[in-house]
Amino acid sequence: MHYPPHLLKLINVLKRLPGVGNKSAERFAFHLIDWQHGHLDEFSSVIKEIPYRLKQCEECGCLAGLDKCSFCSPLRADQGVLCVIATSREAFSIEETGEYRGLYHVLGNLLSPLDGIGPEHLHLDRLQHRIEKYAIKELVIALDSTLEGDATALYIKQIFENNSLNVSRLAFGLPMGSSLDYVDGGTLARAFSGRGKF
Amino acid sequence: MHYPPHLLKLINVLKRLPGVGNKSAERFAFHLIDWQHGHLDEFSSVIKEIPYRLKQCEECGCLAGLDKCSFCSPLRADQGVLCVIATSREAFSIEETGEYRGLYHVLGNLLSPLDGIGPEHLHLDRLQHRIEKYAIKELVIALDSTLEGDATALYIKQIFENNSLNVSRLAFGLPMGSSLDYVDGGTLARAFSGRGKF
Repeated sequence: MHYPPHLLKLINVLKRLPGVGNKSAERFAFHLIDWQHGHLDEFSSVIKEIPYRLKQCEECGCLAGLDKCSFCSPLRADQGVLCVIATSREAFSIEETGEYRGLYHVLGNLLSPLDGIGPEHLHLDRLQHRIEKYAIKELVIALDSTLEGDATALYIKQIFENNSLNVSRLAFGLPMGSSLDYVDGGTLARAFSGRGKF
Repeated sequence: MHYPPHLLKLINVLKRLPGVGNKSAERFAFHLIDWQHGHLDEFSSVIKEIPYRLKQCEECGCLAGLDKCSFCSPLRADQGVLCVIATSREAFSIEETGEYRGLYHVLGNLLSPLDGIGPEHLHLDRLQHRIEKYAIKELVIALDSTLEGDATALYIKQIFENNSLNVSRLAFGLPMGSSLDYVDGGTLARAFSGRGKF
């Protein structure tokens, strides 16, 4: 007995979500079948309206909603600091820490030659333009500590670092509340080499 | 910095999916923001069409798609066996085993007094009607081996079992390919008490 065609279609669409395989998609699909009409209509229209209600700021690339981008306020530009992030999501996490009040710049990609993503996909001319426009003094690189993140960070440092612009990167070390027993060797090594006065 | 209103709405709707909490919903939402318009429109319409394209068979409760219910064919009725399942999903899993060719009956609920689900939510009059209509000789109870499944199975057995109708339940025992070391005590006990000639 095969699933009805619309159920198969639903499962295939749900599998496009990140981390959702066949089993999860089936589970979601059978759950959706039991939803009330009203909830299904709401879900459907919320999805449909995404491109119209959630726009990326044309300047910084952050998620702006419908209003003026709140990550691009003049007060922030005054700080002379610009934080380079991979996706618009990171801006929210960094804002939540309360540690940073400067500008953001969303790259949209990380260098990944195997996936065909080279330097031209980073649109660094836009970053260059903003560094000049806002007389940025420090570039904070807040990229993943992965192969792709490291490569991208290094590439940006090589291009932009000069006498008038410092390039910094987020610190590496032990995560807060972690036990040394469970920390991997790479992290432990970075935490040792980066040890500071206590 | 708060999420734009539409993003919050999207996250709240996604959290209605089973097993999706705040973190997963955020992950899905930020992924959806990057989807192409075409994919979003497709997702939206597939969801919207669920109630019109996936109907439950009015007789057996299985998922019928748009065509006549294939779980209700006269050939199946001839077997005189009716399998009681909790949701329409189970019918597909049981069909896949190839072990069963009789009729199905979807209960829709399992007895759960704490959630306010009592015998009246099982609509056993419909089951009674079908047992008579198809002169059913055996009722196979294929419900979860949980507290709710056990209670529902017992309740159905007490009501329907008589001289002309046998009530059976799926066997309990070791799952295939399992190691005794990892099998829980309850399962092991059931496997022992249900041991058969080898």
